[in-house]
Amino acid sequence: MKLNGTSIIGGARALAGERKFRAFNPVADRALEPDYFSATPEDVERAARLAAAAFENYAHVSVQRRRDFLHDLAARLEQAGPAIVERANWETALPVPRLQSELGRTCFQLRLYADLAAEGAWLDARIDHADPQRQPVPKPDVRSMLRPLGPVAVFGASNFPLAYSVAGGDTASALAAGNPVIVKAHPAHPGTSELVGLTVQQAVKHAGLPEGVFSLLFDGGTEIGTALVSHPLVKAVGFTGSRRGGRALMDLAAARPEPIPVYAEMGSVNPVFILPEAMEQRGGEIAAGLHASVTLGVGQFCTNPGLVFTLSGAATDRFLLRLAALIAHTAPGPMLTPGICRNYGLGVARLAQTGGVSALARGETGPTGCSGGAALFRATAHSFAADNSLMEEVFGPATVAIECGSREELLAAARSLEGQLTASVHGTEADLAAHRELLAILETKAGRLVFNGFPTGVEVCPAMVHGGPYPATSDGRSTSVGGRALARFARPVAYQNFPDAALPDELKESNPLGLWRLVDGRLAQPATTAG
Amino acid sequence: MKLNGTSIIGGARALAGERKFRAFNPVADRALEPDYFSATPEDVERAARLAAAAFENYAHVSVQRRRDFLHDLAARLEQAGPAIVERANWETALPVPRLQSELGRTCFQLRLYADLAAEGAWLDARIDHADPQRQPVPKPDVRSMLRPLGPVAVFGASNFPLAYSVAGGDTASALAAGNPVIVKAHPAHPGTSELVGLTVQQAVKHAGLPEGVFSLLFDGGTEIGTALVSHPLVKAVGFTGSRRGGRALMDLAAARPEPIPVYAEMGSVNPVFILPEAMEQRGGEIAAGLHASVTLGVGQFCTNPGLVFTLSGAATDRFLLRLAALIAHTAPGPMLTPGICRNYGLGVARLAQTGGVSALARGETGPTGCSGGAALFRATAHSFAADNSLMEEVFGPATVAIECGSREELLAAARSLEGQLTASVHGTEADLAAHRELLAILETKAGRLVFNGFPTGVEVCPAMVHGGPYPATSDGRSTSVGGRALARFARPVAYQNFPDAALPDELKESNPLGLWRLVDGRLAQPATTAG
Repeated sequence: MKLNGTSIIGGARALAGERKFRAFNPVADRALEPDYFSATPEDVERAARLAAAAFENYAHVSVQRRRDFLHDLAARLEQAGPAIVERANWETALPVPRLQSELGRTCFQLRLYADLAAEGAWLDARIDHADPQRQPVPKPDVRSMLRPLGPVAVFGASNFPLAYSVAGGDTASALAAGNPVIVKAHPAHPGTSELVGLTVQQAVKHAGLPEGVFSLLFDGGTEIGTALVSHPLVKAVGFTGSRRGGRALMDLAAARPEPIPVYAEMGSVNPVFILPEAMEQRGGEIAAGLHASVTLGVGQFCTNPGLVFTLSGAATDRFLLRLAALIAHTAPGPMLTPGICRNYGLGVARLAQTGGVSALARGETGPTGCSGGAALFRATAHSFAADNSLMEEVFGPATVAIECGSREELLAAARSLEGQLTASVHGTEADLAAHRELLAILETKAGRLVFNGFPTGVEVCPAMVHGGPYPATSDGRSTSVGGRALARFARPVAYQNFPDAALPDELKESNPLGLWRLVDGRLAQPATTAG
Repeated sequence: MKLNGTSIIGGARALAGERKFRAFNPVADRALEPDYFSATPEDVERAARLAAAAFENYAHVSVQRRRDFLHDLAARLEQAGPAIVERANWETALPVPRLQSELGRTCFQLRLYADLAAEGAWLDARIDHADPQRQPVPKPDVRSMLRPLGPVAVFGASNFPLAYSVAGGDTASALAAGNPVIVKAHPAHPGTSELVGLTVQQAVKHAGLPEGVFSLLFDGGTEIGTALVSHPLVKAVGFTGSRRGGRALMDLAAARPEPIPVYAEMGSVNPVFILPEAMEQRGGEIAAGLHASVTLGVGQFCTNPGLVFTLSGAATDRFLLRLAALIAHTAPGPMLTPGICRNYGLGVARLAQTGGVSALARGETGPTGCSGGAALFRATAHSFAADNSLMEEVFGPATVAIECGSREELLAAARSLEGQLTASVHGTEADLAAHRELLAILETKAGRLVFNGFPTGVEVCPAMVHGGPYPATSDGRSTSVGGRALARFARPVAYQNFPDAALPDELKESNPLGLWRLVDGRLAQPATTAG
């Protein structure tokens, strides 16, 4: 597939517009060909109209066809894998093995969500039978299930050029749930986006689906994203990125004549709590694990642990010495973009200048302008309580150890936390028994609690929650990873007293699709899949 | 129970403030004693702090205790029923039998949601077991379930002084899901609110729950509601009322430093479509049913049918004549408040003056200023397409028949509709087969589709959807009635690699609560309730 730099609008390509930009290779420190042409408002209009037109059909294609489409897309991505990974490596500086595994995850997600959609439990199909004899009024027959929302705008993420970008988790779950998708490509990896976008375009065509099921728009600025989120035919938004960017989209969506849901995953500082007995018994091991988690992928994960809470003592001193030594000997790594690297440098400088914060260790610095060196800081719980800025995410391989003088200081610090994607606790059974209150607090702060582990690495499985209260996400009632991701892009619809023939197959009395359904308030197992 | 007119804050009463108001008896045309004292910002602060303090406990009480609390509350409301119904009758002019049945529904809802909460399927408990041998990295043990959000602000509705007010559906579902509730009473029925509020206060005390689980604030204006929705400790909002009021709360919640979900049910015009063969065969019967639905409760339902779409022809002419005769002979009824009656009068006058709209019939007018007389208007699909104002709800016993010249005009009208709570279709099997596209369109417009019936009357059952795309509600992904109502006030939380003893009972390996759970992607039936 040859790159031509223009947006993909349904089955066609947009014209080359006036505004253009290029990808940048952070390792070679130079821009990459070809030119990418920012889409125009007319392109947004065309993509939105095509998506709305496609919705009437796509929302009603059989679950089997939708499943086949997404499986075929995964197979095509695997086939195009080497070219995609090569280009992504140039554009993001992420290592090839990491990109290969990310491509694998991307395809796994597409297949998982396709299978979940076809299996159909996520539809929450419900049937309450009529009772014509009921007094004082007859009881109607009421059946309901989730139906797709309509065209979804998805914003690609800089740090997951595959798994949270053009055919990533948001796209996969929105498509699996029956919604057309319009992707706004992240400008840091337009070539990767184009290669993946062309693959999706081919899969749509191969499946015989309406072309408007998928479009991909490029933009070096914010104009096209704004136009997309403001467009009356767009019914939901998926975004992974900065808090500033996410909040801007939330505000835009909330101010529309018809407000729409925004699922923005905006990162967090992912606090790690190390309880005293665990610190005493395994401090060195925890330091090694934490160091690996902080520096993984040059710290460029939304689950990167940016705050570590400890209780003062000799074991904690030893732990910090060990962690400092590991950080100091960390080789620098190229970051995703010059902008991310610049912001990381500013964030580290801000921490270094914050009152009550001392620098414990700095990792090695690198040869190019895009290198991010690891950093470890230390502050007291008192300083943490006094300065909210310590709660702000520094995107990169930096972490701040907060030393608490007492259990009460530790609890107060936990209570003061904003919403988080994750919170981790290291402890023995005795630690846990003595800190039940800490767990109860963290449960109100985070989408995922990790025990004796680290937050990086988000397992894609039915039970996973990758979400959390604001500002970790725009909507703590949802998750962008796991089985519940599909339901974000759907709403319940009830059918009252419908003749069987006019009902969707999912709700027909004979259960032709063999779904789990809630019948008269009881979960009923489909006969065809019993056992 | 004696009325004293002050807000209920946890286990205590607020002081009598400076601002005060009184209830009004629309039939007797006079204000009712006692004075009601508007709460103060300090009262909001106290109620919010008590609620937040209660949350840590209430979110973790056993499901059995929460269930017992809500069942006890229902029993207490039944016991206090005669006094509550008498006061509600004075304050709202709703007939005693209607209020008795509404009290029954209120208690039914409390028990249903309590039982659903205890049964626990709504928690969506999921378990994915670990696989330590998996390559390249071990698979963690991940378990997740829904957890409550925190203090919920509930706004009482004018037209359901019991079932959608102090202990109504929003309060019942929020409490059942584990959230403390702060109710802002509707100023049109403060005495009813106080009686119900005192009953809730007693039930909280009897159950030994923290007092902050429930508070009730009075206000004759909007200041207290604004303060509640703006309060950082309030985590969600339930509202039933006007579009203007609902949108104001949505905007307020979206602009908070920490935006929170708002579930506002803002009414709709509930279009009814009558297809040609049904019109031919049952036009008279449909006219009688429609008339009953339009005039039920003096038209004061959010499911009142305000638009009727027909195809031109002799059968439609006969139908309209019959409907006009029924409307003309409709006795007037007292409306809930002078304000609602005034707005109804203005709405009817606006319709009468709208270009292309002709008045077909006016019901009898009443003796007092609070009487609402029925009204029937007629317009062409052309006029409907030309004037958006015909889509605006007129709250009261009025409806507009839109005559379409062709199937295409009917579809175009359906396509132009805003989001609705309901859409109804009258048709024969042949009609349905010929109008599949109409159903597909309506499915994208409404939360509930009714076949050969009328939208008034919302069955409280697991499958019910009382919701719909904006502007029918603030959040079309939810329903304020039915089994899914609980999940509105909850969010998923995952527990990774937790020792069994530290897990919530719902997620422990032995399934001590006997819940349905999704285990390794498969629904697993609890052993204790098998069969």
